[in-house]
Amino acid sequence: MALLDSINEPNDIKELSEEAMPELCREIRRFLLGITSRNGGHVASNLGAVELTVALHRVLDLPKDKIIWDVGHQAYTHKLLTGRKEALLSLRQKEGPSGFPLRSESECDAFGCGHSSTSISAALGFAKARELKGTDEKIVAVIGDGALTGGMALEALNNTAELSSNLLIVLNDNERSISENVGGMANYLGNIRTSKNYTNLKKDVENALNSVPFVGEKIANKIRASKDSIKRLFVPGMFFEDMGLTYIGPIDGHNVREMETAFKSGLRVNGPVLVHVITKKGKGYRAAEDHPAKFHGVDPFYIKSGDLKEEKQGESYTEVFSKELHKLIDENRKIVAVTAAMPYGTGLYDIKKSFPENFVDVGIAEEHAVTYAAGLAAAGFTPVVAIYSTFLQRAFDQIIHDVALQGLHVVFMVDRAGLVGKDGATHQGTFDEAFLTLIPGLTVMSPKNATELCDMLRFAVNEKGPVVIRYPKGQAFTGLSGYREPVASHKNEIIINGEKIAILATGVMTGVAMDVWRKLAEDGLNASVVNIRFLDSIDKDLLRDLSKNHTLLVTLEEVVRTGSYGERAAAVIAEEGIYLNPLIITLPNEFIRHASVDEQREEYGLTADAVYEKIKDRIG
Amino acid sequence: MALLDSINEPNDIKELSEEAMPELCREIRRFLLGITSRNGGHVASNLGAVELTVALHRVLDLPKDKIIWDVGHQAYTHKLLTGRKEALLSLRQKEGPSGFPLRSESECDAFGCGHSSTSISAALGFAKARELKGTDEKIVAVIGDGALTGGMALEALNNTAELSSNLLIVLNDNERSISENVGGMANYLGNIRTSKNYTNLKKDVENALNSVPFVGEKIANKIRASKDSIKRLFVPGMFFEDMGLTYIGPIDGHNVREMETAFKSGLRVNGPVLVHVITKKGKGYRAAEDHPAKFHGVDPFYIKSGDLKEEKQGESYTEVFSKELHKLIDENRKIVAVTAAMPYGTGLYDIKKSFPENFVDVGIAEEHAVTYAAGLAAAGFTPVVAIYSTFLQRAFDQIIHDVALQGLHVVFMVDRAGLVGKDGATHQGTFDEAFLTLIPGLTVMSPKNATELCDMLRFAVNEKGPVVIRYPKGQAFTGLSGYREPVASHKNEIIINGEKIAILATGVMTGVAMDVWRKLAEDGLNASVVNIRFLDSIDKDLLRDLSKNHTLLVTLEEVVRTGSYGERAAAVIAEEGIYLNPLIITLPNEFIRHASVDEQREEYGLTADAVYEKIKDRIG
Repeated sequence: MALLDSINEPNDIKELSEEAMPELCREIRRFLLGITSRNGGHVASNLGAVELTVALHRVLDLPKDKIIWDVGHQAYTHKLLTGRKEALLSLRQKEGPSGFPLRSESECDAFGCGHSSTSISAALGFAKARELKGTDEKIVAVIGDGALTGGMALEALNNTAELSSNLLIVLNDNERSISENVGGMANYLGNIRTSKNYTNLKKDVENALNSVPFVGEKIANKIRASKDSIKRLFVPGMFFEDMGLTYIGPIDGHNVREMETAFKSGLRVNGPVLVHVITKKGKGYRAAEDHPAKFHGVDPFYIKSGDLKEEKQGESYTEVFSKELHKLIDENRKIVAVTAAMPYGTGLYDIKKSFPENFVDVGIAEEHAVTYAAGLAAAGFTPVVAIYSTFLQRAFDQIIHDVALQGLHVVFMVDRAGLVGKDGATHQGTFDEAFLTLIPGLTVMSPKNATELCDMLRFAVNEKGPVVIRYPKGQAFTGLSGYREPVASHKNEIIINGEKIAILATGVMTGVAMDVWRKLAEDGLNASVVNIRFLDSIDKDLLRDLSKNHTLLVTLEEVVRTGSYGERAAAVIAEEGIYLNPLIITLPNEFIRHASVDEQREEYGLTADAVYEKIKDRIG
Repeated sequence: MALLDSINEPNDIKELSEEAMPELCREIRRFLLGITSRNGGHVASNLGAVELTVALHRVLDLPKDKIIWDVGHQAYTHKLLTGRKEALLSLRQKEGPSGFPLRSESECDAFGCGHSSTSISAALGFAKARELKGTDEKIVAVIGDGALTGGMALEALNNTAELSSNLLIVLNDNERSISENVGGMANYLGNIRTSKNYTNLKKDVENALNSVPFVGEKIANKIRASKDSIKRLFVPGMFFEDMGLTYIGPIDGHNVREMETAFKSGLRVNGPVLVHVITKKGKGYRAAEDHPAKFHGVDPFYIKSGDLKEEKQGESYTEVFSKELHKLIDENRKIVAVTAAMPYGTGLYDIKKSFPENFVDVGIAEEHAVTYAAGLAAAGFTPVVAIYSTFLQRAFDQIIHDVALQGLHVVFMVDRAGLVGKDGATHQGTFDEAFLTLIPGLTVMSPKNATELCDMLRFAVNEKGPVVIRYPKGQAFTGLSGYREPVASHKNEIIINGEKIAILATGVMTGVAMDVWRKLAEDGLNASVVNIRFLDSIDKDLLRDLSKNHTLLVTLEEVVRTGSYGERAAAVIAEEGIYLNPLIITLPNEFIRHASVDEQREEYGLTADAVYEKIKDRIG
């Protein structure tokens, strides 16, 4: 790593010669593979953006100039080049650097991100600030072709026309989001990539026009009179020009020299410029080039084989959902699975293969996905929309206004609900219980184990109105398999009918509650344990029943406190004068940083030991 | 109204001759002016869409075919033509028809709406359902040029490329949202509107190419080889063609015959089609044509003069905010006002006039607006983003992920918080307290009166981190002017220091609490009244203090129960064992239908009388 050794601070890279860049990029790739194979992380996107990042860092002056990343899972090289080489060894680990840009981590991280399609919006804010300050820093937004189909990116693109100063937008086009891209924009970019003969065509037409003195001249005038429509013949990227941007490209995104030239030209334009750069996800590492979706976000792996280091232990909730949905669609073709660009992550890839007619991928477009599903439901079908908890935040208004207000039967499968571990603060699924249960008419459920996820899904597709099922990342819990009360609307499940202490747990926390129960049993206490299946309304009858032979009511959930079942239950207890003493156990109202899920539970007191201690404290 | 008299059911309009259409449209306009001048409502948008609606109804077969409106405030003619003529006399009144399409109101209202940019998404869902069912109903999405800049409309437009069956999108281009449109799309549509000579140009170029046998042929071949790039020279709407749609237009949106022809052609295409129709807001009524923003949504008015029937009583909260912000920007040019297409509605129009540099209108683009503001804040400025409560739902993820997570100092002015009256269920501002207070690190305030709004705004722009101020529609309360404790972080204001009964009220409900206090005083009870200024966290010290000489704690808020201050306070009371008996008074967890605000408060028990009765009931 001879070259990389010389890069310790921002701008050090400019000291190296242009000729050294290919070797530097090779070193960077080795470094990134070393880290990600050990710590896990985003592989394909980072390998694809090495030259792009190098070229930007050679053209810009950091931290004065601003690079604003999008999604941010491609910023490892950026971190490497801005004084975080040593730190990166503990990437995504507790106290180590985040896997995403983070303002609190470095002055060179101008704007944090983890969700898609935010960069142009933020960059326009920075550009407005520059205009008001009268300063001259350069501002660059990087955005992927997948992220460009996200609504807010298009809102921002539309808004660039208002800008009178420079803004460089680098479109990192790798022909994918996590999976293949879909939609008009993807087709359009595909056309640009395959059209090679603009220059020749232009020459021929010009010659032809010149060779016909009178008519040719007349046409030329007509064409000039018709504004810039002649450009339509020759310029790729007219779509962007129509939106008021200058288009430069397409450029080879693995050629540092070409990109430097393009970026420098782009930065000289007095207005918004889009430089279209073609990259390959996983570039330089065969396993990732061949399987970019697998190497999107990945656990530790062997570099040589590309195999994961740890054998998978059991099925994930995502897989359990996928199989059950497969069965249900087989029985009922009114069910249509909908994903927003994540057929793999949400487990819908198998549905796509088996029932292509009953599968829809709308692209990175959560808002559209939900209202599309509302349309399907209004027309008599049963859409099952699978979206990660954190990304469902994008469709909050659509759930309220298009689904719930009309009482439409849309099933929402909220994956990655609760703690998500190493992806950290931008990706935590800790808010959905609160923001979904405040919406009138939504049924919100959470299963205690794999079987219950299946039972709930079956219940949900046969229910009326909007239904949500939230379940966590990772391996599905298979314990408590002996407890399988039929799922019935707003009936919760009593697991242990004990006395004095009642533990009400939601979803994955039911297993933890049982561990707590065992500890209490060792102390001679026979607590009750209830699996709260329905989160959207408080089970008053249950509370009144429990109050007859219990005094302490413990609620246990992996969500923020505000809006938790525990908080809402405690309010009912106070207002109705129910004789129970509530102990609300949740995560705090905070953004939870990256670490393993176990470390996060440890830190915030959601382990069986910690819960047991809190109960013992309370009962004195 | 001779012609209109013959239209009583869907499809009746097809019995009339084409020649009768101009007169019918005149009758419809008279009818609409009659209703809106009496009941208030959306004037300009409905007058602009008369011919468009008539043409659609002549081409389609309702309710078998589906018209999916966008925003929906232009659907009065649609209601008129689908058997709701009599009902429309009580438009927007309690028990009368909604001002927006409503599925529960008519089979002809295929999909409800009130927010912008949803129609193409829903229509694509309907189209997918049609493919799966194998039926042949026609599906039409109507969308305005303003709504087309909303992110989810663009997500949907991108997704139309995947459609293999017909979908007719009617772009109702009136060159405005409520105010003038901004951005690249608006410029682009403007270019299309002003380019008249495509046909001539095409003919000339073709002749030229034919007149040059060898070279001409060669060019023609080249051009053919280069796919459809020749279209770029001739076809307006290439932007849409690039996205995979067939473009037809521009068409005169006040010529029924032309539109019928265009719609019929469009409906024959095997795929998505956009028909671009040019209309004029307020068409046919001079006052509205001249002042479309004033006649967007309006109270009862005199048709002759266009003047409002009721003299305005006093300043609205919006106006109070506007004036105070004017003062603050005058003192501090770091403040930048941001609106999403609503400079009038949010009171920022005066800022635009006085401080154009410190004003930004990003178009109908709430998501972008918030992240744009985050960028401004990250660059050291103080954005003040003014958005209606109901529309802020669109930017929920951006508030979490781009603002709060980074602790950026963005001030959110949440107008129309609480009940909004006649706009009804799609527009209620009853959820924001719940969805904002669940976000970590957000300071959320609500003022009791006009002066406090000013004090809070001044506090907010000088505070750190994200700050929200929520305030209602309508006339600002000027009572309680003697109570003006300085606004200090998370300190609430005790108005009356009484005993036994404590009433904690938020925002506008503080005035109601005082009326309740007076009623209780007549009974010899001296209740306490507290103005809860800070909604984001529960004031435990206050609760403990109150518990010393109070037994009943009444909370009073104009929001849904879930996530209300009252609910969260009751949870604290239960958990901390504070000796208070809570009575939580809020709206129910429901979508509130249209009626006047007073009628809504009456219905849901938020009047002083109703609150007084509830307290008396409780104390027995």
